[in-house]
Amino acid sequence: MDLHEDCAPLAFLLGTWRGRGHGEYPTIDSFEYLEEVTFGHVGKPFLAYAQKTRHAETGQPLHAESGYVRAIGDERIEFVLSQPSGIVELHSGRVVGTRLDLTLHAVHTTPAAKSVTDVARSIEVTDNTLSYTVAMAAVGEPLTHHLRATLERELDTQ
Amino acid sequence: MDLHEDCAPLAFLLGTWRGRGHGEYPTIDSFEYLEEVTFGHVGKPFLAYAQKTRHAETGQPLHAESGYVRAIGDERIEFVLSQPSGIVELHSGRVVGTRLDLTLHAVHTTPAAKSVTDVARSIEVTDNTLSYTVAMAAVGEPLTHHLRATLERELDTQ
Repeated sequence: MDLHEDCAPLAFLLGTWRGRGHGEYPTIDSFEYLEEVTFGHVGKPFLAYAQKTRHAETGQPLHAESGYVRAIGDERIEFVLSQPSGIVELHSGRVVGTRLDLTLHAVHTTPAAKSVTDVARSIEVTDNTLSYTVAMAAVGEPLTHHLRATLERELDTQ
Repeated sequence: MDLHEDCAPLAFLLGTWRGRGHGEYPTIDSFEYLEEVTFGHVGKPFLAYAQKTRHAETGQPLHAESGYVRAIGDERIEFVLSQPSGIVELHSGRVVGTRLDLTLHAVHTTPAAKSVTDVARSIEVTDNTLSYTVAMAAVGEPLTHHLRATLERELDTQ
């Protein structure tokens, strides 16, 4: 299946990425995690995104999220995702080289979820290494750094 | 991995489901599609949901969506999902036997997406058959039936 031409600027994200991250937030203990991220495509003008983390020591599942990076032309993108914590995010942005320049359009939560009012994400690939950060304004805290991880691309064995 | 006790009322959804659906909407030609739906779990109080459809005749990928069914206690649930069309949905509801009784909490779209202002979903399992409907208020139309599908559970071959 050929990559949709509008996704060409996003090709640097394709594949499965594995590595390690560090989480922190003023209201919780810091933690280390193992992570797997995949960006896939089906020939349409979006990439499918899925992510899972496990505790670095116990191996217990921690977080997950899934969504789509929409290529809307001229290297402009939109990124939608949902989380089992009851959060959905909508970002607008642009591909700048091998970096996603994202601006939050909106974040919404279900009635039983913890309050989240702002999210800032960065995603970048350098030398076959994907690094990202997530900052959140949640449970009354201002926008504060939360997650940072560095992942290596899985070699394609197919 | 044991199913989280809060997910016990949702166990009837677990697995991979395949089948056929019919789509229609006042603004488009009706179409037939093939579909695969999975509900999985990692021992936490949610199910992961993923869905993909293909055109029934050409086999071309059509739609996809992914998200999470949150078990929030007392058979109450929340369902969040995102779509590559730039739509995110948040539903609240309840498990009633082998049916999800869902009420839309909110639907939001990215700036470049088509307008969607209401979504109504039903999901039910009867005799190992999962059937669902989706109605949408989109592109200026009132809430109107859009999708109906009937899927059979894949036998667990592991």
